[in-house]
Amino acid sequence: MDPRMPETPLFEKVALLGIGLMGGSLGLALRASGLAAEVVGTARRPETRETALRLGLITEAKETPEEAVRDADLTVLAAPLRSYESLLRSALPALKPGSVVTDLGSVKTEPTRICERLLKDSGVSFVGGHPMTGSEASGPEAARADLYEGAVWCLTPTDATDSVALAKIQLLAESVGSRVIALSPEEHDRAVAATSHLPHLAAVALISALDVVAADAPVAAMLTAGGFRDTTRVASGSPPMWRDICLANRDSILKAIGIFREALDAMEAAVRREDGPALEAYLEAARSYREKIVKPEP
Amino acid sequence: MDPRMPETPLFEKVALLGIGLMGGSLGLALRASGLAAEVVGTARRPETRETALRLGLITEAKETPEEAVRDADLTVLAAPLRSYESLLRSALPALKPGSVVTDLGSVKTEPTRICERLLKDSGVSFVGGHPMTGSEASGPEAARADLYEGAVWCLTPTDATDSVALAKIQLLAESVGSRVIALSPEEHDRAVAATSHLPHLAAVALISALDVVAADAPVAAMLTAGGFRDTTRVASGSPPMWRDICLANRDSILKAIGIFREALDAMEAAVRREDGPALEAYLEAARSYREKIVKPEP
Repeated sequence: MDPRMPETPLFEKVALLGIGLMGGSLGLALRASGLAAEVVGTARRPETRETALRLGLITEAKETPEEAVRDADLTVLAAPLRSYESLLRSALPALKPGSVVTDLGSVKTEPTRICERLLKDSGVSFVGGHPMTGSEASGPEAARADLYEGAVWCLTPTDATDSVALAKIQLLAESVGSRVIALSPEEHDRAVAATSHLPHLAAVALISALDVVAADAPVAAMLTAGGFRDTTRVASGSPPMWRDICLANRDSILKAIGIFREALDAMEAAVRREDGPALEAYLEAARSYREKIVKPEP
Repeated sequence: MDPRMPETPLFEKVALLGIGLMGGSLGLALRASGLAAEVVGTARRPETRETALRLGLITEAKETPEEAVRDADLTVLAAPLRSYESLLRSALPALKPGSVVTDLGSVKTEPTRICERLLKDSGVSFVGGHPMTGSEASGPEAARADLYEGAVWCLTPTDATDSVALAKIQLLAESVGSRVIALSPEEHDRAVAATSHLPHLAAVALISALDVVAADAPVAAMLTAGGFRDTTRVASGSPPMWRDICLANRDSILKAIGIFREALDAMEAAVRREDGPALEAYLEAARSYREKIVKPEP
């Protein structure tokens, strides 16, 4: 028996609204760890529900959010950011008083406002979360029981957050192997604009620039090695998901782009004036800061 | 016996001017494949020469380029770009007439001009090359016999290039497992500005932007996941090497930065006006172009 396996499950019944990579992997982890007795899932497409059942990501599939959340102690929004409002509106009449709703979304400020507004006076607590894990793969087939192991799982409480609900979600996150960092939704969104959203847009712009160069000189597209592959890997992620992230975190992303542009402009100026010492200083500062903050390659 | 092992070696004696990751790995591969009977190496630092000998990257170490190249059929410049001129000047009196000099540098136009000018009327042929492989690691300890396997090895002949010498270097590259792409030095430099040098500067600017954001909000530095790690991996490369690359390929890099900035500006404008369809179109175009040109992850 897994030493982490609790004698009684943390949640009798968990409802997953969304059973793709993130929701499906959470279902697997909840089941593997014994944290939930029942994991009910829903998804718009019947094939997704069937695949999730077949792969054991959930113990039961329901056709609607309202059916899925009935009697659930925990409801997890594991769907695209812009579906939160409609999912929660559908679920609302069936949400159990005293239960907790959390989410796995990459942007927190505006989505948290939406969820808190909808759940106000419902007797249901909302705790915003963002497990910083995933991959370019998506859908229930990509789910993995260990997706959350070793990840940072941000929790973003507000003044309205119930502390018992927060503690439960923290326990959930830690029980599936993640390390919890608590911060405000606004702090979170400013931070991930720099660590995730800006890198995504930079990767897209790098590919787009190569596309332009290769239009004149097709051989350029043949000269991509490991560096280009890694630098642009994130750009293979789902376009609709990243569109939603960009729209939901607009202000922080615009600020991050501005800061990035200043850094690039400074290096461009150093290249233009052939200033070796300045260039080397920029390169060295980045190398050593990266060494300080990025965990060694797995 | 390796089926690729020739009955008589392609080169009796190869001189490596530089025995770090690139030169040292070539030494290993030449020895493993039987392409060279003798591999003599030189490096400025005695410890590098001793390590290279101890690890079997070379069969003999010499203190100076002039000693190293004596009687060599092939001389390989495997040192930083800006050392080419002084290395070749030192080696020049001892270079064997009829022998070939090649290099492994990341920039070709200006370095090729320097080498061709120095070797003019010497009876020694120059063939510019750039094997697109490597890693953030450096030095002889990082050398690997399989570094060149599966890599694209650019050869950049000019009007002055001897066709027999070119054929020999092509055979060398293919014998260590690389695929040769021949193009002009100028085409090469325009292409790698987009596929390698620009991505490097973008990665440095991403790290620098995070450094600025984290100065106000230190938690940001804790929120880097796999995406940030991969997108910025190349920025752990050697600062002096990348300084030299930026200076040597100045004009193509400045053009590539301009094209990149246009792509980023267009996405920024779409985020600013909250234009979901335009954003999704940029993201989708990049995703599908990347799929077309980048080999699947290893």
